[in-house]
Order: sequence, then structure tokens, then C-alpha cells
Amino acid sequence: MKFYDCSTAPSPRRARIFIAEKGLEIETVDISIADGAQLSDEFRAINPGCTLPALVLDDGAVLVTTAGIWAYLEDAHPNPPLMGATADEKGRIADVRYLIEANGFAAMAEALRNSTPRMKGRALPGPDDYEQISELADRGKVRVQRFMDRVDAMIGDKAFVAGGSYTVADIDLMILIDFAKWLKMGLPEDAPNARRWYEAVSSRPSAKL
Amino acid sequence: MKFYDCSTAPSPRRARIFIAEKGLEIETVDISIADGAQLSDEFRAINPGCTLPALVLDDGAVLVTTAGIWAYLEDAHPNPPLMGATADEKGRIADVRYLIEANGFAAMAEALRNSTPRMKGRALPGPDDYEQISELADRGKVRVQRFMDRVDAMIGDKAFVAGGSYTVADIDLMILIDFAKWLKMGLPEDAPNARRWYEAVSSRPSAKL
Repeated sequence: MKFYDCSTAPSPRRARIFIAEKGLEIETVDISIADGAQLSDEFRAINPGCTLPALVLDDGAVLVTTAGIWAYLEDAHPNPPLMGATADEKGRIADVRYLIEANGFAAMAEALRNSTPRMKGRALPGPDDYEQISELADRGKVRVQRFMDRVDAMIGDKAFVAGGSYTVADIDLMILIDFAKWLKMGLPEDAPNARRWYEAVSSRPSAKL
Repeated sequence: MKFYDCSTAPSPRRARIFIAEKGLEIETVDISIADGAQLSDEFRAINPGCTLPALVLDDGAVLVTTAGIWAYLEDAHPNPPLMGATADEKGRIADVRYLIEANGFAAMAEALRNSTPRMKGRALPGPDDYEQISELADRGKVRVQRFMDRVDAMIGDKAFVAGGSYTVADIDLMILIDFAKWLKMGLPEDAPNARRWYEAVSSRPSAKL
């Protein structure tokens, strides 16, 4: 297997932390999005969609989304389970993960990609160029703040966001909170459950990656 | 179990077809989005996120996303598998599904919700109101068309979009194509693989739902 990573971007970090939490070691190639290397002919030959992360399997098949990489590795290396062991857990974790990705992660990407000067003309990832939309940046920020205001209640008195064990939903939520710092946004001051949880997940060795 | 559905919306249809393909019969309640019933106090007590579909499990737990409902039912009722039986299949299906949802479904929702007069002030699903952004409607249409232009190559000579058997990726792609008709968009004329595939999946009994 070969893992195509980008050490500065939030999406590849989701796969990177997952790999570490599984205790796997996979040959890794860093592709610099800052240098536009994801748009090079060389990388297009691996992923014509020009996005990271990507995972090339031993038979040459290529997975080009975090969703695909997680699903593959969870089945090929089931322990420790990061996506649930029972039907109830799998359903709940997929549910929480979707809410974090759709209401948090996607909103943060909208806010950042539509406002930061170095992403002019690159408001969406992928091979096609799209102009920034300033109203979308503003809406994204409003959505991120609303999401952050709800994290404390999402965590409640649970050890982790989807229940008693560490899962992909924790990976998503921790990366979202770190990602939001790019726009100087984050958890509200008065969020004791969320802050207790964030400190715990951030102190795991995988979080340094 | 109790399934909260909305017969006129594309997202709940994803769960509805999945349930039918599994051969399950689940007590179903229709919530009319056209009447705003998803914002009623009664439905908020079930899903404070005010979105459909939702599935209430026998122990009272509630799944509020298609992702969660699919993950739960796939594990609880594994046959026929709709999300893959091996690690390779699970990875590939999750990958294709993500690409359809992020590049197709999300773009279509952007195009429609930001342009149609009856969604004024409701540009996103959920409890919060957001104004329409006309530039986003325009961008969404461009993205949907680009996605449609690529479907023929995605299908290629395969029987189904993620390989040799019918999966959740086929459910997503078929519903996207039907959804796009709302904006008079669709597959290009010269797309023989995509049209052969669309005819096959649309003739399944579940597609009538």
C-alpha cells in the first residue's frame, strides 16, 4: 500500500490519524497542496480528482476519499474498531460523523476557501476552478459558530462524542476544532464538557500527527 | 422500529429504497416538508435537527441521517449486502458514494435550494434559516452539469456504478439523476453506458418508491 498525504491540510489528517490509531505503518508520500502538486500530471495519474488523501492498494486500486480509506482499513484491520462493533454502534457513529462533516467540516471549508486570499479561484477542491463567493464565506462562519455552540451538548457526560470509546467521529470533531483556529474560531469559553473532551483527544499520540 | 419519511424529498428516498432492497418492512410515518411539518414541535421531539429521514430503534435511540440509517441496517440485516462484503468492496463503494454525494448530490441541493422561490429563506435544511445566495445556485448548476458529463465514464462497462452488484452508490446516483430533473438537468444525450445503467436501476421495483 502507498498513502498519499498532505501534512498541512485537514482532510488527509483524518486518514493519517486513523492509520496511527490502528497501529499501521504505511509507506507515505507527501504531496504539497501549497505548491499545487495535487494538480500535477504525476498526481493526476494517481487521482484524476486531484484531491488528498489517496490510498493505493496492493492490487493497484486507488481509494480517493477519506470515507473510502476508512471503510477499507476498518474492514481489513478491525482492531481496535473505530467505526463501531455492533449495529447500534455503527449506526450511531455514522450518524454523528455525518452531522460533524455536513454541519461543521463542510461549513468550515466554505468559510475558509471562500475568504482566504491564497484560495482565490480555488473555492472548491478538485480539478475545476471556482471563484470565491463572499456571501458563502460569511454564511460558513455563521454556521461554524452555531456548530461550535452546540458541541458541549453533543459531548454531554460521555467520554467520547459517539459514546464510550474513541471513534472516527472524535477524529472528525478534533480536526474540525483545530481547523477552525485558522479563522480564529473555536469552542465557546463556557463549554466544560467539550473542553474536557478536547483535552483528552488532543493528548493522544495520534493527535500530534 | 419506526421510520420517519417524506415521500416528496430526495434524501428520505435513499433510506426508503435501501429498506425495500433489504426486503424489510418498517412502520412508516410520512412527514410533509411541503407543509413544514419537519419544523413542528412534535417532530422536533424526535429529531431536533428537523431533517428527514429519521429511524427510531426499538430501544428508543434515534438515527437522524441516511448515513446512520444505512450503517445500522446494513449490519443488522446483512443480506443482500448493499455496502460491500469484503474490505476492497467496502472501500470502493464508500469511495464512489462519497464522490456522488459531495460532487453530485450536494451540488444539486445547492442549485435547487438557492434558486427555487418556495425555498426562500430555507437555503439549508435544519432548524436554522439561511437566505438564498444566487451565485451559489449558479455554481451548483455548473457543478451538476460537470458531474453529469462524467457519469458515463464512471459507469464504463460495469453493471453497476461501484462494480458487479447493486449498492448504495447506485441508490445515490439514480436519485441524483431523478432529482436533477427538477431543474431540467440530466445525463447528456451521448452517454450510452450511463443510460443503459439508469434504465436497469430504474426498472427495479424499489425505484418506484
